[in-house]
Amino acid sequence: MIPDSLTQIQYDTVYNVFSLVIASQLFTSIFIIISLKRVLPRYRQAMTVAAIVCAIAAYHYFRIFDSFKAAFVTEAIGGAGNYVQVAGESFNEGYRYVDWLLTVPLLLLELIAVLALARKVQTSLLYRLIPASALMIILGYPGELSGDNGVRGIFGLLSTIPFAYILYVLFIELTKSLDRQPRSVRRTISQLRLLLLLTWGVYPIAYLLPMLGIDGSDAWVGKQIGYSVADILAKALYGLIIYRIARMKSFADDP
Amino acid sequence: MIPDSLTQIQYDTVYNVFSLVIASQLFTSIFIIISLKRVLPRYRQAMTVAAIVCAIAAYHYFRIFDSFKAAFVTEAIGGAGNYVQVAGESFNEGYRYVDWLLTVPLLLLELIAVLALARKVQTSLLYRLIPASALMIILGYPGELSGDNGVRGIFGLLSTIPFAYILYVLFIELTKSLDRQPRSVRRTISQLRLLLLLTWGVYPIAYLLPMLGIDGSDAWVGKQIGYSVADILAKALYGLIIYRIARMKSFADDP
Amino acid sequence: MIPDSLTQIQYDTVYNVFSLVIASQLFTSIFIIISLKRVLPRYRQAMTVAAIVCAIAAYHYFRIFDSFKAAFVTEAIGGAGNYVQVAGESFNEGYRYVDWLLTVPLLLLELIAVLALARKVQTSLLYRLIPASALMIILGYPGELSGDNGVRGIFGLLSTIPFAYILYVLFIELTKSLDRQPRSVRRTISQLRLLLLLTWGVYPIAYLLPMLGIDGSDAWVGKQIGYSVADILAKALYGLIIYRIARMKSFADDP
Amino acid sequence: MIPDSLTQIQYDTVYNVFSLVIASQLFTSIFIIISLKRVLPRYRQAMTVAAIVCAIAAYHYFRIFDSFKAAFVTEAIGGAGNYVQVAGESFNEGYRYVDWLLTVPLLLLELIAVLALARKVQTSLLYRLIPASALMIILGYPGELSGDNGVRGIFGLLSTIPFAYILYVLFIELTKSLDRQPRSVRRTISQLRLLLLLTWGVYPIAYLLPMLGIDGSDAWVGKQIGYSVADILAKALYGLIIYRIARMKSFADDP
Amino acid sequence: MIPDSLTQIQYDTVYNVFSLVIASQLFTSIFIIISLKRVLPRYRQAMTVAAIVCAIAAYHYFRIFDSFKAAFVTEAIGGAGNYVQVAGESFNEGYRYVDWLLTVPLLLLELIAVLALARKVQTSLLYRLIPASALMIILGYPGELSGDNGVRGIFGLLSTIPFAYILYVLFIELTKSLDRQPRSVRRTISQLRLLLLLTWGVYPIAYLLPMLGIDGSDAWVGKQIGYSVADILAKALYGLIIYRIARMKSFADDP
Ligand SMILES: CC1=C(/C=C/C(C)=C/C=C/C(C)=C/C=O)C(C)(C)CCC1
Ligand SMILES: CC1=C(/C=C/C(C)=C/C=C/C(C)=C/C=O)C(C)(C)CCC1
Ligand SMILES: CC1=C(/C=C/C(C)=C/C=C/C(C)=C/C=O)C(C)(C)CCC1
Ligand SMILES: CC1=C(/C=C/C(C)=C/C=C/C(C)=C/C=O)C(C)(C)CCC1
Ligand SMILES: CC1=C(/C=C/C(C)=C/C=C/C(C)=C/C=O)C(C)(C)CCC1
Ligand code: NA
Ligand code: NA
Ligand code: NA
Ligand code: NA
Ligand code: NA
Ligand code: NA
Ligand code: NA
Ligand code: NA
Ligand code: NA
Ligand code: NA
Repeated sequence: MIPDSLTQIQYDTVYNVFSLVIASQLFTSIFIIISLKRVLPRYRQAMTVAAIVCAIAAYHYFRIFDSFKAAFVTEAIGGAGNYVQVAGESFNEGYRYVDWLLTVPLLLLELIAVLALARKVQTSLLYRLIPASALMIILGYPGELSGDNGVRGIFGLLSTIPFAYILYVLFIELTKSLDRQPRSVRRTISQLRLLLLLTWGVYPIAYLLPMLGIDGSDAWVGKQIGYSVADILAKALYGLIIYRIARMKSFADDP
Repeated sequence: MIPDSLTQIQYDTVYNVFSLVIASQLFTSIFIIISLKRVLPRYRQAMTVAAIVCAIAAYHYFRIFDSFKAAFVTEAIGGAGNYVQVAGESFNEGYRYVDWLLTVPLLLLELIAVLALARKVQTSLLYRLIPASALMIILGYPGELSGDNGVRGIFGLLSTIPFAYILYVLFIELTKSLDRQPRSVRRTISQLRLLLLLTWGVYPIAYLLPMLGIDGSDAWVGKQIGYSVADILAKALYGLIIYRIARMKSFADDP
Repeated sequence: MIPDSLTQIQYDTVYNVFSLVIASQLFTSIFIIISLKRVLPRYRQAMTVAAIVCAIAAYHYFRIFDSFKAAFVTEAIGGAGNYVQVAGESFNEGYRYVDWLLTVPLLLLELIAVLALARKVQTSLLYRLIPASALMIILGYPGELSGDNGVRGIFGLLSTIPFAYILYVLFIELTKSLDRQPRSVRRTISQLRLLLLLTWGVYPIAYLLPMLGIDGSDAWVGKQIGYSVADILAKALYGLIIYRIARMKSFADDP
Repeated sequence: MIPDSLTQIQYDTVYNVFSLVIASQLFTSIFIIISLKRVLPRYRQAMTVAAIVCAIAAYHYFRIFDSFKAAFVTEAIGGAGNYVQVAGESFNEGYRYVDWLLTVPLLLLELIAVLALARKVQTSLLYRLIPASALMIILGYPGELSGDNGVRGIFGLLSTIPFAYILYVLFIELTKSLDRQPRSVRRTISQLRLLLLLTWGVYPIAYLLPMLGIDGSDAWVGKQIGYSVADILAKALYGLIIYRIARMKSFADDP
Repeated sequence: MIPDSLTQIQYDTVYNVFSLVIASQLFTSIFIIISLKRVLPRYRQAMTVAAIVCAIAAYHYFRIFDSFKAAFVTEAIGGAGNYVQVAGESFNEGYRYVDWLLTVPLLLLELIAVLALARKVQTSLLYRLIPASALMIILGYPGELSGDNGVRGIFGLLSTIPFAYILYVLFIELTKSLDRQPRSVRRTISQLRLLLLLTWGVYPIAYLLPMLGIDGSDAWVGKQIGYSVADILAKALYGLIIYRIARMKSFADDP
């Protein structure tokens, strides 16, 4: 699926978008860590997790960026030509799954932690959401590796089961607990869930593309941009909204 | 627009100026973070944003520096000769737009945050300034990429609309709120806005140059120096003035 | 024992697993350091040690990762071929023993520190556990180096003596002191010891493999994955459980 | 002025001296940051500036070190031969001027800040010392670049005017304010000024050397060592004395 | 004295031992910095110095490690052959003297600082110990450089004079002040001095070896290991004992 050749504009665009993700995740992480003291202790766990998630993403995008840079080369003066895959180096898409395996459970933990529900409810939610999310990623992986669209389809389907379950828990079960949240933050929490739905949806859609025959270097570049934008929204923006909720709840608890 | 060849003096000058920007932004950022505790909590958000902006700029100048170093080479002993563009590497001007996309909205946020206006006024200002500034950068980008002066002109014009709007908000609307600022800081805030006007003006002017036929390696070197100086003033000096205002307001609020 | 050649899937798998270990250890370490203030001072020593252990592991996996990357190369376009050992570089398994020499005693120290036993009991336990654990690692090393299965067996056996002694101290002697722990954490401490038993067991089993004739590239890849997973569980997960116990005990001591 | 060739002893000496400067500046900076809390808040600004100055110097010496290492090469086994300038790389003396442009004004700021004079006196001093010091560096630069001894002399002379002015302000004007300093620190402040005089004097003397015909590789090595030692004294030792004064004044203010 | 060739086992051993020193020094430094708040303010200076010493050592071992890796190469597949000195790179023993010049005076400062003696006694001790220790290192250096055993002997002898003086001050003069230390720490302080004596003794002995005709690659490898172990004990372990003393004295002062 990795294209043999990219035009300079394609190469530069992917290059700059990856660098944008690095900067976004890294500095969101640092911003959140510096701001930790501005919320009540009970919300710091959620914010720390948010910062760690962005830092993990920054780490993986550093590696993705270097992997991309090494994998495609040109011989044109000033880089003004086509970039082709080089001998001995590969663009390693696998980093994304490694990243998700760590960050997707943490994103759910972040959400639950910021709600500061009763201990029992919280534990019950986490004991179901975290294994489900790990399962979702692990099941998707063999499909991604396989060149065969049938295998891709089957594992995609299997992976969708825990995905659906996660959505069920977040959108049906959790809704009840929302009533106990301070009125002022309810809207923001709903926005957060919506953001989660919209951004997480990008990943299975991108997974579908090769099965729909959408291929070639344009599709690939589009997919990289899609992933990158989704990653910024699903981690950095998401983390900033977590911070906002933590601020609002801190104020509501201790005005 | 990137020149095929630079003299050693041109090469060394750009090289040293880029390194100067790295050092200025990086250590301003660290200085502001260390000094965070010297202002009242309500001004720390503004200062944190100021530090993050400088850190983002340092990050991008690290990349710009490396990109420049790789893109131009010489074969002369001791580097004492002309530097030419090398095969396979390009000087990536795109980093600037990536940088602006992140830092320009944050610079406006910094300014609004340090004023510590009523929550409502603040939200209303940010909801207009931040999208306008993002639009300004995004509209300028296709013009920068295009080799055609007509296209450059059109996108430059489109980009100027949100730019004008931002200036309108800052210089007309905001002026009313200034009356509510402690007398002692009013002058410093005005200086800050003036600094913003003068430094931000550099970017559209640099954008114009190729349309005015000002080209060649001298113009290019001049542009890089211009950008670098403007970046130091618009981010590092600006951040230090924000710190100064925060100190003054902290003292006025809690003498 | 290092295979001459790896398939791309084997190479990529090891590569991604090593990167996963780096990210897990590094960010667990940072997470624990940030969370230090959430437990009472008397439990911070244990948590600091937990963070240091993960940081040491991250350091060694950085080196292991680079060593692996340099040692195996391919000439296939896009890296889509077999990877063979290169001239002049070696994959350095020795890093693991260096890592263990530092981290294994610290893992025992972590456990003892979080129990916050009476000073005397604590000292007596440490004076026996730490030398025993250092001895265990040092005795295993010559066997690992030797190509001869007889030598391997003898040193393995010698190394098992301090290993058995450590287990004896932890599972027989320590059990008495557990009664003095707050009721609420007893279960978690037992889980921690169980985790220790299960994960530490992986290392002598991996050591046995070549003596059982389980060799070849698949076995080697399996061993690397086994080590990696065991390292994540024995250090990062272990450290997080230490944090959990410290939180619970902080709450029990000062509700 | 950069020699074509260095003996191994010359090469190794410069190499080790540069590394010594890196370590001295970097760890002095870290030491001062860690020690920040040991002085009263009113002296922390001075100490923060001292730490930043050392950090900026460490940054520049990292670059100078790498530049030196790349610029001189040998073909002898074990490096045991002469080192000659290589094609395509240059030793960049320009870093020193970039460094001075940032650090020299900050060194003066440090001194004024630790005195904690009346706000007005302080502002007046800074408004004169900082522009003068920037002017001094900027005027010296064209002379350094020029190969011509006449040009060198003229710019050296011009640069000496602000230099003399700075010394006048520090040694004549400032002396009056010293009476208001706690008796116990007066001697230390005088020592600090003396250190400043002695170390700053090294730079114009080194500037003179080529005009006196003192050239060749020995003179060059001597100059590098001279700069390095002066930089350690003028920044790291100076910063540590600032710390000492801040400690003494903290104690005098709040025994 | 640097051997022309190393076997793989020799190469790997030195390699792993250097990496062990890096990890030990780096993480001891971090551990001590994190633990700073666990002792009373009056002991933090000593601990900060201990952390800085370990950090300086980590820095130099990073460089020594890289220098070693670059200086010896093999052409054997998988690195399984002899390693020989390469053209153009040298193993730089000079780093050790640079390191000592900074760390040896600091180690003495650490010791004096943790005793928290009367200001006057402290100053008098430091004014004698620090110059003596710097002299000791500087006098040893020319002997180390020289290939001639006579020169080596003379400078070794000269260097031994300040060495003897330091031991005299520590073991005769200081003994009197020990009576004023809290009874509980006296034993630990004596252990610390003993550790100092035993580890510092390693350096002059290693210096003697070439004069005793103990040469060749085995002797060289042994010397590197000896230095490394001595460095871990004399800095990292020493720093941890300083921490222990600071904890005990904090407890004795403010139970
Ligand atoms: C349902 C499904 C998938 C879902 C992936 C998701 C939901 C990933 C979320 C990633 C996030 C949130 C990353 C961090 O920002 C896969 C594995 C693509 C396989 C196809 C089916
Ligand atoms: C109006 C205009 C532009 C404005 C750019 C500005 C105003 C950039 C500001 C950048 C800053 C402040 C950077 C950080 O220091 C463009 C995009 C060049 C395109 C042409 C029209
Ligand atoms: C008994 C035994 C061994 C035990 C090793 C152990 C128990 C290692 C533990 C490592 C850990 C816990 C690492 C960090 O997570 C050896 C040396 C393989 C040699 C064979 C016999
Ligand atoms: C008078 C004079 C000069 C003065 C330079 C000085 C005074 C530099 C100080 C540097 C410091 C203090 C660096 C940091 O430690 C120049 C520019 C060489 C040019 C010749 C005339
Ligand atoms: C007496 C003597 C020496 C002493 C060296 C010492 C005592 C070094 C201590 C180093 C330490 C403590 C390093 C850090 O851990 C030399 C210079 C070898 C030269 C020969 C005579
Ligand atoms: Na490339
Ligand atoms: Na690969
Ligand atoms: Na170059
Ligand atoms: Na490019
Ligand atoms: Na490889
Ligand atoms: Na090797
Ligand atoms: Na070199
Ligand atoms: Na150059
Ligand atoms: Na090597
Ligand atoms: Na050398």
